[in-house]
Amino acid sequence: MAVRLAPADRLLPVPGFQLGVAEAAIKQPGRPDLLVVALDQGARVAGVFTRNAFSAAPILLCRQRIDGPVRGLLFNAGNANAATGVAGLDDARATTNEVARVLGVDPESVLPFSTGVIGVRLPVPRIVDAIPQAIESLRLDGWNDAAEAIMTTDTVPKGMSRRVRLSCGAVVTVTGIAKGVGMICPDMGTMLALVATDARLTPTAVRTCLKRAVDDSFNSITVDGDTSTNDACVLAASALTGSQEIHPRHVDYPLVSEAIRSICLHLAQAMVRDGEGATKFICIAVEGAKTRTEARRVAYSIAHSPLVKTALFASDANWGRIAMAIGKSGIRALDSSLVDILLDEITLMEGGQIHPDYRDEMGSAVVRKAEFTIRVRLGRGGAQARLWTCDLSYDYVRINGEYRT
Amino acid sequence: MAVRLAPADRLLPVPGFQLGVAEAAIKQPGRPDLLVVALDQGARVAGVFTRNAFSAAPILLCRQRIDGPVRGLLFNAGNANAATGVAGLDDARATTNEVARVLGVDPESVLPFSTGVIGVRLPVPRIVDAIPQAIESLRLDGWNDAAEAIMTTDTVPKGMSRRVRLSCGAVVTVTGIAKGVGMICPDMGTMLALVATDARLTPTAVRTCLKRAVDDSFNSITVDGDTSTNDACVLAASALTGSQEIHPRHVDYPLVSEAIRSICLHLAQAMVRDGEGATKFICIAVEGAKTRTEARRVAYSIAHSPLVKTALFASDANWGRIAMAIGKSGIRALDSSLVDILLDEITLMEGGQIHPDYRDEMGSAVVRKAEFTIRVRLGRGGAQARLWTCDLSYDYVRINGEYRT
Repeated sequence: MAVRLAPADRLLPVPGFQLGVAEAAIKQPGRPDLLVVALDQGARVAGVFTRNAFSAAPILLCRQRIDGPVRGLLFNAGNANAATGVAGLDDARATTNEVARVLGVDPESVLPFSTGVIGVRLPVPRIVDAIPQAIESLRLDGWNDAAEAIMTTDTVPKGMSRRVRLSCGAVVTVTGIAKGVGMICPDMGTMLALVATDARLTPTAVRTCLKRAVDDSFNSITVDGDTSTNDACVLAASALTGSQEIHPRHVDYPLVSEAIRSICLHLAQAMVRDGEGATKFICIAVEGAKTRTEARRVAYSIAHSPLVKTALFASDANWGRIAMAIGKSGIRALDSSLVDILLDEITLMEGGQIHPDYRDEMGSAVVRKAEFTIRVRLGRGGAQARLWTCDLSYDYVRINGEYRT
Repeated sequence: MAVRLAPADRLLPVPGFQLGVAEAAIKQPGRPDLLVVALDQGARVAGVFTRNAFSAAPILLCRQRIDGPVRGLLFNAGNANAATGVAGLDDARATTNEVARVLGVDPESVLPFSTGVIGVRLPVPRIVDAIPQAIESLRLDGWNDAAEAIMTTDTVPKGMSRRVRLSCGAVVTVTGIAKGVGMICPDMGTMLALVATDARLTPTAVRTCLKRAVDDSFNSITVDGDTSTNDACVLAASALTGSQEIHPRHVDYPLVSEAIRSICLHLAQAMVRDGEGATKFICIAVEGAKTRTEARRVAYSIAHSPLVKTALFASDANWGRIAMAIGKSGIRALDSSLVDILLDEITLMEGGQIHPDYRDEMGSAVVRKAEFTIRVRLGRGGAQARLWTCDLSYDYVRINGEYRT
């Protein structure tokens, strides 16, 4: 059960993007598992992709094609097309070729995205058969159906829309959808996110907006520290609305960039809230570091510690484990006698020692909540970082133990 | 329940070492939780200690005192005396002072070792009261009782003895005991190990034997990737037996060093077999790396992946997750098309793709066993590394969720 996460509201259409879904029975029949997105000519697209050395075939094709004109996106759930070698590349090409044929666009202009089990060949004939049906159902108002079609072990479809008014008076829309129940979800190829806008962002602006948004959102969450072979996030701007090109120094750039960032943050936090077996949603804020990298390292050391995560599951304000995780993070010459640890507003540890006024009940009252912040002050500089994670529960073990079997 | 691990057999006495235990009711009454080891004059001692920045007070004292003459060791279970600041140092000194007083030795010659809950002051009066009783019960034959006295969440006392005949005809004994159910066990201060011999190892030989033994044993295991604030391993040689000093180039050095190494390996593997919630004991062997560091990085990436560990718990030969863990290990320019993955003798992945003859049943037959090897060939060099780990089960979550509450 997701932690305080409602299914996406009605998502707003974005001029220049049409979406259609179909049932290809890739893993199991009875639910839509295929999504085609058609982009109007002239869209500007940027993507960030997994750094895992076992990058899946669709990721390899995306990297080749992302800089050319992009006219179509093909998503499938249920099969990651990862660790499938040269045959996997051929399979991915066969499916995008079919999308290109039916849409009447260049085959190189279609990007594939796959999520699901690793190491199993894509059922190409079933996908190719279902593509015309998805394309027949293309419509501007297809975002909510799209968010459902890309789910795997997600329990809640994830999406968000925002509208912002530009200085010229035009109103542009940003809509994003995502799937993923952690940095990696079972077996695989986890996180997929698509954010679309009709703003006239320049190609450079698309890239810089995406980078900033991803750093603060998808790159600041963790469920289990595992990085999938298929992670991908794409930002596409149809450039249909507004009178001026929005380059990174345009007056409207901060506004649009912030709308994109806030949607990515919502989607990233939604993944953690829907994290496998999650019962709690936890912000980890590290302050007083020498650099942001150092702050992130400490934050991840806490967020990845199975001992911290199991204690939080049990509503145990076990600050000893938090101290252990800070201490093992490997930052140079950390002076433990300068470290403070807080749970929301409660000071547990001050100057490396338990606070004299602290009582276990005070910490327990915080960690019993579904949502709270672990704040760490390192006392060695002015840099900080925040990330979001969830606890480690029996259900995480059950979900990941039972997924394939 | 520990994976194929019997309690230590009768452990052999080592001339020069006497051991006595007592009940100090540190965490709960009704079981011995205090151990004093008295060393004859002239013992040569070396130690390795945790690198966690929140090193506990006893670790700080050990580091100060290890190079001087060592006459006594004081172990307690139930309280780690970690994150206790200056007061914790005073507490540790108060208890070692009492050992020194009753033994009639220099206070600086007694080393403290603590394991248990973090952030709680040591119950000094109860420990001081119990020390005379432990010292009254000192005897050469106290090793098995000692192994029990240092247990916390361990389910099996861990120890091993070996005898080796030196070239001069003398027989020397090596006996080791340890506690720990992972690199870290709940809350803390986990791993303690003491290995004793009567061989006339020179001080340098003691250090080099210890370093080699620890690298191949305690530094090659992981339960959950967490590093405790209290880890310590001590090797002590009473130098009472044998006609010659054994320096690192002495003919008997390899024999004695190997005996010490094999005992450390047994103790380290015993910790994994008794790992919290462990149902399987898994060797991870990485070959074909450019360097040993690289091989270890890949091995740890597999061993620390919650997705791999939960799949193994479920007897799921989920090689996709193993490939993911290799891919995310961050080694430079890894060519996934050269990677092989084997389970015992079964090839799952060859050249980055699933082996054509591989069927899920073949892998399942291996991972259903209580003990097996995951072998990875990287195809980029001649270096290798092995480490040992366990699976991640419901019981891990239960034990670590319920430990304090």
